Amino acid sequence: MKVALLSGGVGGARFARGLADVAGGANLTIVGNVGDDLEVLGMSVSPDLDSILYALAGLNDEERGWGRAGETWDALDTVSTLGGEDWFRLGDRDLGLHLVRTQALREGEPLSAVTARIARALGIEAAILPATDDRLRTWIDTPAGSFQFQEWFVARGHRDEVDGVRFEGDAHAAPGVLDAIEAADAILIAPSNPYVSIWPILAVPEIRAALEARRVPSVAVSPLVGGRAVKGPADRMLARMAGGTTPEHVAGCYSGLIDALVVDESDPTGPHAVRRVVTKTLMTDLAASRRLAETALGAAA
Amino acid sequence: MKVALLSGGVGGARFARGLADVAGGANLTIVGNVGDDLEVLGMSVSPDLDSILYALAGLNDEERGWGRAGETWDALDTVSTLGGEDWFRLGDRDLGLHLVRTQALREGEPLSAVTARIARALGIEAAILPATDDRLRTWIDTPAGSFQFQEWFVARGHRDEVDGVRFEGDAHAAPGVLDAIEAADAILIAPSNPYVSIWPILAVPEIRAALEARRVPSVAVSPLVGGRAVKGPADRMLARMAGGTTPEHVAGCYSGLIDALVVDESDPTGPHAVRRVVTKTLMTDLAASRRLAETALGAAA
Repeated sequence: MKVALLSGGVGGARFARGLADVAGGANLTIVGNVGDDLEVLGMSVSPDLDSILYALAGLNDEERGWGRAGETWDALDTVSTLGGEDWFRLGDRDLGLHLVRTQALREGEPLSAVTARIARALGIEAAILPATDDRLRTWIDTPAGSFQFQEWFVARGHRDEVDGVRFEGDAHAAPGVLDAIEAADAILIAPSNPYVSIWPILAVPEIRAALEARRVPSVAVSPLVGGRAVKGPADRMLARMAGGTTPEHVAGCYSGLIDALVVDESDPTGPHAVRRVVTKTLMTDLAASRRLAETALGAAA
Repeated sequence: MKVALLSGGVGGARFARGLADVAGGANLTIVGNVGDDLEVLGMSVSPDLDSILYALAGLNDEERGWGRAGETWDALDTVSTLGGEDWFRLGDRDLGLHLVRTQALREGEPLSAVTARIARALGIEAAILPATDDRLRTWIDTPAGSFQFQEWFVARGHRDEVDGVRFEGDAHAAPGVLDAIEAADAILIAPSNPYVSIWPILAVPEIRAALEARRVPSVAVSPLVGGRAVKGPADRMLARMAGGTTPEHVAGCYSGLIDALVVDESDPTGPHAVRRVVTKTLMTDLAASRRLAETALGAAA
């Protein structure tokens, strides 16, 4: 069974890890969000792709929730001492990846190619693809002004309420993305923030069109538990922009793109337009991630 | 007493530290070699300037002889894992400086300005100037071919005999360099490799002309002890290119540019064209560096 997964950052990466175990890495293509990519200290950083890479390679820090386990912070300490750009936390181990990627991009290698090369070097079997090799950037409109995603999320600690999300760039699907969607027996959407993790993927017109034209089941996993985000601002954004945090509101973010929504047992009824699948969605450990992946795959079978 | 010092890497940096103590940082301008600068992993690295910065800030690793004390190597470990460019050893603490410098250079800040900013941030009182803000690169001609300095020195472990040294680039003196030489009461040349540490500075025509036109004493310190380099290939290069490793051969590298040469008590007689000043030149610790700096200053008084 071939599976295509759309995924954002940490929650999506955790789900992807379980799904790779359940579906088999060779059967899995993960299409990752690049809308929150940024340039920091002259380097091209792709936080969501890296979360997926680290989770699938078993290198991620489970406790901190992002970045690499056993990380050190000496480079950024120097940067701080020298008055450099230190608002975005980059660990030393993580930095090595950014240096390799940035050098490759500067030399003209597409993001999809360097990502594949890094995944291979880390021993990852699943295909990890950026949604696009083109520049695509998520902008957050707030009462305090418009900000690039990471400026809002990290530098401002996502304290501003969100009135809207926009995507900058005229992006085409990266090589392999449309083929993977076309070849998939099931399409899954990870429990990521719909607005800032999944919508940037859907902002690539070819990808949205491919999902709309799918002939196989498509299942999203809600990122909410009892109407609350496990982490981050998804619930606040849904409440303000969709008018609520029920399964109905989550499903509304994927209108026409999914056939079922996996929701937590603590969530209220709904959605109504698509099938409701109930389980425990909190991924407390790898076993829980695997069970959630199994449920989502089952819903797509 | 205002002092201008021409310096290369580690040995020069050690001398510069002692000289800053003896002459007072506020009276000292250090003109550093940039001929062995390189681009590695997309970053602009200036090893000799950094050796000077670290030595004067007391951050250098005395035992390893280069780089920073308490260094970690996690970023480069990742780079190696990912099959990236790992031939040039960059520590994590060191990396932070390269990132800050590279970003500044890309944004159009001259090397002299970013170096001054870094020196200030590290609490260094002496002025540290690159010989030039322009691109200047040292090439090494060997029986095996011509190599950029670091390719020969690091990647090939300076195993090839050297037939000649060339300097690429049409370089002007960095802001402040000619003023510092003009204002100096004494000009010193550090115990660095003449060919690859000092000649690249002298390859800037304005600097050579300013030294030739000096009206104050100029004193070089020989990098040899008993005809042997303390570290590195200076002795092999002198033997092959100058025909020997006596004080006469060292002084010949600075013909017309110095009035005295400080040599080790274990070295044979000479030079003859300029004054010979004998002392213990081995800088075993900071006190020894200070004594050597005092002797060199005394010779220029």
